[in-house]
Amino acid sequence: MNQKTNQRTSKSHTIAEIAAKAGVSIPTVSRVLNNRPDVAPGTRERVERIIDECGFVNNRVTNTLRKGSSGIIDIVVPGLDTLYSVEIVRGVGEVIERTGLRLALSTTNNALQREQQWLGKVLEGATDGAILVLSRGQSRNLDELHRRKIPFVVVDHRGELGTDIPSVSATNWSGGRAATEYLLSLGHRRIAVIDGGSSLRCSTDRVAGYRAALEEAGVAIHPEYIRPGEFMQQTGYEQTCMLLELPEPPTAIFAGSDLQAMGIYSALRAHGIAVPNEFSVVGFDDIPIASMVTPTLTTIRQPLVEMGRVATTMLLRLIAQEPLDSMRVELTTTLIVRESCASLPPV
Amino acid sequence: MNQKTNQRTSKSHTIAEIAAKAGVSIPTVSRVLNNRPDVAPGTRERVERIIDECGFVNNRVTNTLRKGSSGIIDIVVPGLDTLYSVEIVRGVGEVIERTGLRLALSTTNNALQREQQWLGKVLEGATDGAILVLSRGQSRNLDELHRRKIPFVVVDHRGELGTDIPSVSATNWSGGRAATEYLLSLGHRRIAVIDGGSSLRCSTDRVAGYRAALEEAGVAIHPEYIRPGEFMQQTGYEQTCMLLELPEPPTAIFAGSDLQAMGIYSALRAHGIAVPNEFSVVGFDDIPIASMVTPTLTTIRQPLVEMGRVATTMLLRLIAQEPLDSMRVELTTTLIVRESCASLPPV
Repeated sequence: MNQKTNQRTSKSHTIAEIAAKAGVSIPTVSRVLNNRPDVAPGTRERVERIIDECGFVNNRVTNTLRKGSSGIIDIVVPGLDTLYSVEIVRGVGEVIERTGLRLALSTTNNALQREQQWLGKVLEGATDGAILVLSRGQSRNLDELHRRKIPFVVVDHRGELGTDIPSVSATNWSGGRAATEYLLSLGHRRIAVIDGGSSLRCSTDRVAGYRAALEEAGVAIHPEYIRPGEFMQQTGYEQTCMLLELPEPPTAIFAGSDLQAMGIYSALRAHGIAVPNEFSVVGFDDIPIASMVTPTLTTIRQPLVEMGRVATTMLLRLIAQEPLDSMRVELTTTLIVRESCASLPPV
Repeated sequence: MNQKTNQRTSKSHTIAEIAAKAGVSIPTVSRVLNNRPDVAPGTRERVERIIDECGFVNNRVTNTLRKGSSGIIDIVVPGLDTLYSVEIVRGVGEVIERTGLRLALSTTNNALQREQQWLGKVLEGATDGAILVLSRGQSRNLDELHRRKIPFVVVDHRGELGTDIPSVSATNWSGGRAATEYLLSLGHRRIAVIDGGSSLRCSTDRVAGYRAALEEAGVAIHPEYIRPGEFMQQTGYEQTCMLLELPEPPTAIFAGSDLQAMGIYSALRAHGIAVPNEFSVVGFDDIPIASMVTPTLTTIRQPLVEMGRVATTMLLRLIAQEPLDSMRVELTTTLIVRESCASLPPV
């Protein structure tokens, strides 16, 4: 008995011990561990400090480990070069680091073949579960994971997903509407939008939000103001150049991503057009670059880190064979006002 | 015999088979696998394509795996929020993805305690080897890894390292000198430099390169032009504000990092000073943001992705118990001229 206690103490503390040390209830510790929002910041900090001091390892997960699991959670992302995936990985890492699990990182470079190589590794090397950030062609792999009974959660799904697939995404439609409403409130009427790919659900939802805001404001939709492309800097550059050549160029652009917005910035500079005095730009994502550039970028914050955190919490529940509150979680997008927009000067 | 061949074919191809398919020699395939620079780009591409098609798995590593290894390579970085670590992780991932190994990612948030938690996981969960990007206080953990006979390579070591520790870094001194020489060549004489931490070897080397360039050009070194700080945006902002208050402010700043340069940009903008016409800025790192901002940032490219690749190749050799060509590898830094510097206007 004594030995058993010692063993446990040296390895980890129970939730009850953490609760006692922090002077809070057991459900509160549980809420902190699950990154639930309904904990006062001060309390969260105290509980987290004690967890850190104790080297706490989530008992449930540890128990799973002892039953001969791999001890590994997989995260698969398109690539680390777009910064977008990096934010999701950060969130996943934050949760995993509180457990005894390890995080295996794989990138697919948007290539279906790479995804299949990853699947091969996973099936050979075993995994406790996977978090997938996939851009296209994912359905075959999802079926295979299902068949092998490997728990998984999809983040920011970009195609249509079956209702039985656990997923976390952001409120893209509301974000698109909020960006457009903000530009309308500054007096802009000639507002363009740049798409990130017409086959991507997240992108079409943003454009639909843009349309809704214009319609609600009684502003006519000009098809030539809705530009196709990818979520990359180059798209932003090229489409801005084309927009500026229109007989009636726009006075503002709502970019599909912050990376596109960086391309918009350089195209405007190449044309000698000043942001925000002569032209307004709103981005989407709020990756770190948005607050670093000059002028800082007004953008729609997509809670990428939180999406990673929530997906991981969902996955840990699936691994522990606990029910999910919801198979589909949509986290709120927020308008972050910085320096890249200004009121339209009176003509 | 026949069955054996089939088995091998379905799992992986030998180097000899890859060489035959690509029409190159076995050493050439080996050079591609080890990311050696002495392969013509066209040849490298062809060999890589065939490797991809065949799902080739490095035989040596596979053999190691079969001897009951964990099949996991660990990468430990301070965090994914500075973009700097992300680039190194990308390079590590590129090499790992060609093997049957998996990459376990851990972040330490610069906290020694987190490093020790990682060590605990590694010792419990086993690892084939580790790549460490540590900022401080690492010596205790390095000793522990040594004692446990876990192979490891340190990337961009920031303190003093024993000569028996395998490491990869960049030529920081040459980079500091090249940045300063470039500003001198544009006519600047009042050139400031921002440090990234006087205890960090990589930073003091850059400042030493700055001093060497000024001395060589016969330009007096003003102690007030050498500013302390961290490799963060805020340091760039604060130190620029202080430099601009000097009786004789500088006309150019060599930043310790691209992140600092972003802070310099915003401080200059707050003072209504235009880059590059009124003030020149050189960064250090060449993280993706450098080519995205407006004006694009002239910087010293630190080959972070390559550093990650080379460290991984070294680690795979250590795991295979092959000798290293060198315990310490320094990769070359390069001046990347973009838009943030201009000739000093004649007074």
